[in-house]
Amino acid sequence: MSATLPEYLAQKRQWIDAELERRLPPAGTFPPKLHEAVRYALLSGGKRLRPILAIAVGAVFGADEREVLPAACALEMVHTSSLLLDDLPCMDDATLRRGRLVCHRAYGESTAILAAVVLLNRAFGIVAEESEAGRHGDRLARRIAERLSASIGADGVIGGQFVDLESTGRTLPFETLEFVHSHKTGSLFIASAEIGALVGGARKAGMEAIGIYAKNLGLAFQVTDDLLDATGTPEVTGKDAGLDRDKTTFVSFAGVDGARRLVDELIDAAVVSLAPFGRKGRRLGELAELVRSRDR
Amino acid sequence: MSATLPEYLAQKRQWIDAELERRLPPAGTFPPKLHEAVRYALLSGGKRLRPILAIAVGAVFGADEREVLPAACALEMVHTSSLLLDDLPCMDDATLRRGRLVCHRAYGESTAILAAVVLLNRAFGIVAEESEAGRHGDRLARRIAERLSASIGADGVIGGQFVDLESTGRTLPFETLEFVHSHKTGSLFIASAEIGALVGGARKAGMEAIGIYAKNLGLAFQVTDDLLDATGTPEVTGKDAGLDRDKTTFVSFAGVDGARRLVDELIDAAVVSLAPFGRKGRRLGELAELVRSRDR
Repeated sequence: MSATLPEYLAQKRQWIDAELERRLPPAGTFPPKLHEAVRYALLSGGKRLRPILAIAVGAVFGADEREVLPAACALEMVHTSSLLLDDLPCMDDATLRRGRLVCHRAYGESTAILAAVVLLNRAFGIVAEESEAGRHGDRLARRIAERLSASIGADGVIGGQFVDLESTGRTLPFETLEFVHSHKTGSLFIASAEIGALVGGARKAGMEAIGIYAKNLGLAFQVTDDLLDATGTPEVTGKDAGLDRDKTTFVSFAGVDGARRLVDELIDAAVVSLAPFGRKGRRLGELAELVRSRDR
Repeated sequence: MSATLPEYLAQKRQWIDAELERRLPPAGTFPPKLHEAVRYALLSGGKRLRPILAIAVGAVFGADEREVLPAACALEMVHTSSLLLDDLPCMDDATLRRGRLVCHRAYGESTAILAAVVLLNRAFGIVAEESEAGRHGDRLARRIAERLSASIGADGVIGGQFVDLESTGRTLPFETLEFVHSHKTGSLFIASAEIGALVGGARKAGMEAIGIYAKNLGLAFQVTDDLLDATGTPEVTGKDAGLDRDKTTFVSFAGVDGARRLVDELIDAAVVSLAPFGRKGRRLGELAELVRSRDR
């Protein structure tokens, strides 16, 4: 806990990148182009915020950080899978992601779709398979898979993405906007935190506090994403600017200042929910401040 | 075991259809159009051959048929998910499936893709969640998930689909054709049989015999699919005829008579592999004969 936040993030990213690589078949495995596309999408210098969240939460509950690593990598694979789909021509039709061409522009549409399914499927494979790094008992592996599946489905990430697409070009009421973001982005933030807590053996009260923290954090993250889309440039964000032009976002709803006030409120609420953890929650507080400062 | 094969199939289809319905959120659940598309694709009168195979194999090893049902439904969801993707404009660009418009022509492309992901994800959810019907222990649930994931990924169904797409418009060597079919179709047949055997508590020798049976059955099924594509009409098959026009298939490779001889050889091999099960394997023998007669 003596590492600074940048040191901490750099170390965890290194662990996660190495573990992600280790969890894929070697480059060149047949069929090589499919594996290349999967690697292109996954091993592309993402922030790894969701797996870091899982690891940091696990540590709050006393989990060995390495023990959270396999499930953390599964979460990152699910996240990358959802980005591959979001970026498709029939969805957001994006050009750039993580500073380079989106997967379907580099490898073709069918390959990008199949790569997304490879990653989603592999995530469940990692949780189910025996792992020397994270020796989860059968019961824990099962609960992680159950939580992961619940967070992704029609009542989670995919439901949010679906309503987001349905809403393009329309003005949304605030409730719908909140539904989209709490599902499309929030679900996987909450699952990341809860899965970390599961590995750490959290009890009910701790799980609830962590759920509130992650819910506020995820929503704040999405609002800062809206802010970056409205105010950032591809050089800064690594992705297309103004893709949300035809969408109701927190920025179109509340303006830049209003959206920033909302971020402040959400991050403050996230930090307050960490009170029961005392000093142990310090790293999670730092992660919350990191999200607050994303667009400033 | 006194039921005729048609009676047996009808009863199992009824069970499976009811269980699939039960495993989805109620129609009308928000967001309604997404759930409607999922139901359109899944509850569409498929043959349910893979879940029936899982149930029939489970019974050979003494599993209660109802105990196999949740995992069997997961297998059907995975299969439907793969059909949704295969049919997409950027893949086979199909029009008809199971006698009606393919999902993306009825609901749009992005919805069909999201519905496919909902189904794949739900399959793992069903295996992981506690189920009153199939009270799998944690260990068994984990092994089923591991087997399911291995059969779907880049070394399974998706790998086969990828090489199939890569090969469109080219003449393939026989080995590549066999790779495509043994992965695209064979993998899930083998997983269905092995998961049924897992639920029944099969030992190594039994698992191996069942694996050989399912491998031959799956390949024979795919060859009869090629035959139906070449010789059938949409009225008979419920899907587009001649979609494989630009592909090397078993029929383009060996001709109609050669492909039928291959089916005979594969089905004979499947039946021979059932010898260790004696009378208990009778239903599996009947399923093999059913596949043999598909296009005749």
